[in-house]
Amino acid sequence: MNTMKAAVFVEPGKIELQQRPIPKPGPTDALLKVTTTTICGTDVHILKGEYPVTPGLIVGHEPVGVIAELGSAVTGYQVGQRVIAGAITPCGQCHSCLDGVSSQCGGKAMGGWQLGNSIDGCQAEYVLIPNAQANLTLVPDGLTDEQVLMCPDIMSTGFGGAESGHIRIGDTVVIFAQGPIGLCATAGAKLMGATRIIAVDGVPERLEVARRLGADITLNFRDCDPVTRIMELTGGKGVDVAIEALGTQQTFESCLRVLRPGGTLSSLGVYSGKLSMPLDAIAAGLGDHHIVTTLCPGGKERMRRLMEVVASGRVDLTAMVTHSFALDDIVEAYALFAAQKDGVLKIAIKP
Amino acid sequence: MNTMKAAVFVEPGKIELQQRPIPKPGPTDALLKVTTTTICGTDVHILKGEYPVTPGLIVGHEPVGVIAELGSAVTGYQVGQRVIAGAITPCGQCHSCLDGVSSQCGGKAMGGWQLGNSIDGCQAEYVLIPNAQANLTLVPDGLTDEQVLMCPDIMSTGFGGAESGHIRIGDTVVIFAQGPIGLCATAGAKLMGATRIIAVDGVPERLEVARRLGADITLNFRDCDPVTRIMELTGGKGVDVAIEALGTQQTFESCLRVLRPGGTLSSLGVYSGKLSMPLDAIAAGLGDHHIVTTLCPGGKERMRRLMEVVASGRVDLTAMVTHSFALDDIVEAYALFAAQKDGVLKIAIKP
Amino acid sequence: MNTMKAAVFVEPGKIELQQRPIPKPGPTDALLKVTTTTICGTDVHILKGEYPVTPGLIVGHEPVGVIAELGSAVTGYQVGQRVIAGAITPCGQCHSCLDGVSSQCGGKAMGGWQLGNSIDGCQAEYVLIPNAQANLTLVPDGLTDEQVLMCPDIMSTGFGGAESGHIRIGDTVVIFAQGPIGLCATAGAKLMGATRIIAVDGVPERLEVARRLGADITLNFRDCDPVTRIMELTGGKGVDVAIEALGTQQTFESCLRVLRPGGTLSSLGVYSGKLSMPLDAIAAGLGDHHIVTTLCPGGKERMRRLMEVVASGRVDLTAMVTHSFALDDIVEAYALFAAQKDGVLKIAIKP
Amino acid sequence: MNTMKAAVFVEPGKIELQQRPIPKPGPTDALLKVTTTTICGTDVHILKGEYPVTPGLIVGHEPVGVIAELGSAVTGYQVGQRVIAGAITPCGQCHSCLDGVSSQCGGKAMGGWQLGNSIDGCQAEYVLIPNAQANLTLVPDGLTDEQVLMCPDIMSTGFGGAESGHIRIGDTVVIFAQGPIGLCATAGAKLMGATRIIAVDGVPERLEVARRLGADITLNFRDCDPVTRIMELTGGKGVDVAIEALGTQQTFESCLRVLRPGGTLSSLGVYSGKLSMPLDAIAAGLGDHHIVTTLCPGGKERMRRLMEVVASGRVDLTAMVTHSFALDDIVEAYALFAAQKDGVLKIAIKP
Repeated sequence: MNTMKAAVFVEPGKIELQQRPIPKPGPTDALLKVTTTTICGTDVHILKGEYPVTPGLIVGHEPVGVIAELGSAVTGYQVGQRVIAGAITPCGQCHSCLDGVSSQCGGKAMGGWQLGNSIDGCQAEYVLIPNAQANLTLVPDGLTDEQVLMCPDIMSTGFGGAESGHIRIGDTVVIFAQGPIGLCATAGAKLMGATRIIAVDGVPERLEVARRLGADITLNFRDCDPVTRIMELTGGKGVDVAIEALGTQQTFESCLRVLRPGGTLSSLGVYSGKLSMPLDAIAAGLGDHHIVTTLCPGGKERMRRLMEVVASGRVDLTAMVTHSFALDDIVEAYALFAAQKDGVLKIAIKP
Repeated sequence: MNTMKAAVFVEPGKIELQQRPIPKPGPTDALLKVTTTTICGTDVHILKGEYPVTPGLIVGHEPVGVIAELGSAVTGYQVGQRVIAGAITPCGQCHSCLDGVSSQCGGKAMGGWQLGNSIDGCQAEYVLIPNAQANLTLVPDGLTDEQVLMCPDIMSTGFGGAESGHIRIGDTVVIFAQGPIGLCATAGAKLMGATRIIAVDGVPERLEVARRLGADITLNFRDCDPVTRIMELTGGKGVDVAIEALGTQQTFESCLRVLRPGGTLSSLGVYSGKLSMPLDAIAAGLGDHHIVTTLCPGGKERMRRLMEVVASGRVDLTAMVTHSFALDDIVEAYALFAAQKDGVLKIAIKP
Repeated sequence: MNTMKAAVFVEPGKIELQQRPIPKPGPTDALLKVTTTTICGTDVHILKGEYPVTPGLIVGHEPVGVIAELGSAVTGYQVGQRVIAGAITPCGQCHSCLDGVSSQCGGKAMGGWQLGNSIDGCQAEYVLIPNAQANLTLVPDGLTDEQVLMCPDIMSTGFGGAESGHIRIGDTVVIFAQGPIGLCATAGAKLMGATRIIAVDGVPERLEVARRLGADITLNFRDCDPVTRIMELTGGKGVDVAIEALGTQQTFESCLRVLRPGGTLSSLGVYSGKLSMPLDAIAAGLGDHHIVTTLCPGGKERMRRLMEVVASGRVDLTAMVTHSFALDDIVEAYALFAAQKDGVLKIAIKP
Repeated sequence: MNTMKAAVFVEPGKIELQQRPIPKPGPTDALLKVTTTTICGTDVHILKGEYPVTPGLIVGHEPVGVIAELGSAVTGYQVGQRVIAGAITPCGQCHSCLDGVSSQCGGKAMGGWQLGNSIDGCQAEYVLIPNAQANLTLVPDGLTDEQVLMCPDIMSTGFGGAESGHIRIGDTVVIFAQGPIGLCATAGAKLMGATRIIAVDGVPERLEVARRLGADITLNFRDCDPVTRIMELTGGKGVDVAIEALGTQQTFESCLRVLRPGGTLSSLGVYSGKLSMPLDAIAAGLGDHHIVTTLCPGGKERMRRLMEVVASGRVDLTAMVTHSFALDDIVEAYALFAAQKDGVLKIAIKP
């Protein structure tokens, strides 16, 4: 009776829909009835066994839902309220959180990422949100699930890439790769006042979306060498900020090669394999370069701000939700998303 | 008659003393009569042919001297005043300088480093200081040449490593390598409020100096594995800031391995060979790490501040001047310094 | 023969057109043939004797022009090039400039403001630009004089108010007063990612322009009490950043009264009379408030960035140039501008 | 039986020792058995009725103690552990805390100050610490109560004044007033690398302590006009950072008058009466000045860092604990402290 459907990681190559008990919230948790969620590129890494999680884990970390039950220590919320929570659910009370590094909650690398990683996630009918007091954010009236669906991860990560780059008014910025995160980084760069935004990808449709979200110049790496082209476009000076949004040696290295002395490489990708820095591109260590990596910022204040952006109409990311599937069909959705077919950017999953 | 002695790079392996014409200042230059200078590790790279400069160049970039002649457009100074100039001599008026990146003057990597690199340097009886208006700084009365000899490069670079690390009160900081720059980074870390400073080197004498300059804990890498030891000392948490002061893959990698999530690697070394980042040490790109490289900050305001530090007695670096040679004997000084014999840290060269 | 027309401050109440010698550039100056300039609110303060300058001074500090002659030490420019210079012309080479406070060049309050203040200004056929190397910026092809006319002062000041407020994505920002500077601050707030921008003024036409430049909400202080209304609009929380763009006790105090604890008051106004802080509005000194004043940032890198903004089309300020007068008619233009009649915002002056 | 002694505010002019029930912790609280506490200047304001609190409130906000009982939702601590908590006890989970403004917890001015303000304080045998998870910090072995007694308020506030001033290596800093907070600001300025620290007060003994804690120059305002003297000492340039540590118009105004253009006034005082800014001292709003107020930073990470400072021996504040009283004699202690007699700086109160 008290069971729910949930997408469960079984073994590398296999995520399947299972019946699971509806969880009970502990004192600091909240139980959400999920109304919409989505699949992230990281979930595909999990599916493929490239990012290890415990078999039996419910996956998913981008919840939009309704409060179904509140832990005894959670105050100021009511059952029935429409909320989101970030992919990263910091506690707000450990040394790292109080030191301003809440994504690394508990002082552990990626410690703030719990949903669908160290605890059950939200590709399910219900999900427990840990540290609910610090993470539940009411959805403003008038915004649809689809409008706020990007806030928990993609938008927070992409904007975080622009913010970590400390983009200033008048900057020239390049974003390598225009998948969902790169597209959000493009939108974030525009939102922060960059005046020359160069977006690089190999898929014309993505470059078209990039243009709508703020790119002034788009480069298809199948048609040109982006490094050469960017150096030409900048008169040999290079860019102020280069955002890496894929997670490969090649894009990372290209970022370094187009970065001006004193510039910032803001890295969002999840890397595998090796990662090396060509010494000529960093002036043998004497170029005053900055390299910064960013894990999706979470917490309810972050979510509030992102939903303010959506509500203001400054950025419209709904075009990124290209497909919609019922939770019942999530295995099929994974197949489509993993194959990057049919122009897919993000898929709304409806329990 | 109007000639001077100068240390000239002839070819890899050979720096020799030659007679050269005393240069004439252009409108924005100043001619200094050098009273004291020193040899930098970078000069040894030049000697060995590891860092390329044009044969015939006078080397050296750490001048203490007296104004001998001023260019027509230089105002507010007088012949006879005792001054220093930084190793980096920014113009103050190009786009990079006005954008706060003066070491990369002109928008070129290392563009601010001219003395003994792109123009004749100061291991000579006289030297031209370019952009004199932005670079001549009066030495406060009562300070000896030896007391300010570290300001143009070593102290500015080492302190810069601490500053770029954004050290805060209460931070735990490690500095890998305790050569002259590492020692100054150690002093800088203390000056900024780090409360647990760990210095790593293989030479007991250098570790002893490190202790005097602020290190709370010293680790000899010949006696222990510093990475393991630092993780133990920090209870597995890692350090807030790791400063690299040598320029090798091993020290760079060790910095990453002891860095807490969200921490900063502040790199001062000049690298050769490859430089790679182990993915586990940077949480595959998700650890909110910062990596920043710093080239010796220059300009007269920087020099003024550093001499204020010396005058205040907060830091005493004179113990680092372990040897003194006449300019006539500079070839011998190079041999000693390159061999790192006799406990040498820095050598005062007296024209 | 070698004379020119120039608007000269004679005495309080009187600025008149006079014949004056065309000046000769010293080694670090450039002579511009002015093609377009404008009148600033500060010029009206000068006219009225509220801001004291030496009688006989040529006024004006917003030059668009063509290089007519270059000082001997100025390099990299050519006669005939179309350029602008900022209202503030920092030297780039003094301790203040090298310390990042170039508007206070020389360490003196407002030391960077020379044109039309401490030296002759640009409401004339020709003007000398001091420290030309640090201040001449080429106008990009395709931009009209009117498009870049706001860069030297209004746009730099207004954007500076947004920048000094450290506006972040998702901030709520209020700008008190929507004269030319307030309007530019409104545009700057939008450019930096504020998502709820409240503009306050008493002139409906200005509020209409504010809406076009980025204001989400406009408040006419003749129709409501803005402090009360803003606290209602923010649910009693107050705003993240309040920008003062007039220079009165009332607007300054209103900014404090709507500022949230921990928020920033970014002040652009030139005050006269007294300036007091109500203790309840600053929590008796315990509210973690920031108050920052900003003088128009100058220098060629700043001008380059602002012209990039114009070229990008992110912000279009040409609607602010409501009138155009020949230099011959500048006395009439002053009368109109001082009276704030006929919907005037900015007047193009054409020598 | 289950009662305790506590210092209670009865009415203006009267704080008395009463018997009160020992409180029971709610789920997120901890009960501390207080071993040492102290009296703050703010408590004297409460005593005098200058700062209003509810009659019946137990006063005091600087607890050193032992965990007696833990709320059900508090994890990772054990009864019997020796801890401190800050005067400010942020929740870590509200929008303000997650936005980095934790002293203004809940978005209310001073919202983070609960102990002895909005809830019962610690001048008692027992005290409840709210939001215990975010606020309990273990005292390192080997540190005495007296050594850490300054951490919860005085040291955090004083250091906060130095930190909010963004003091840099080589700065000249003045601190107006050398009471306990001013002395800690002096120590903080030294800890951050200021090289010329000027301390101002009227009590020779305090100036003597200031000298021991880092002041290079001390000025007794009974012997000279500090503003005139500071301008002489700085060659007319003024100071980089001025810290106000008293809360009067005169000290605030003096700070502005000695501040260089572009400098920062860091204000710690609690003001009463009016607070006005002389326009000449702020260049009529055009001097690029920063004014920032700081409420004592709290939270367990802050306390950990401060105790690291104590443990490192960088700063020794035990000389500031000039007196010790039993809790039974606290009324007498208040009388002494309020009268500022007998060279009192801080009084240890021992329940």
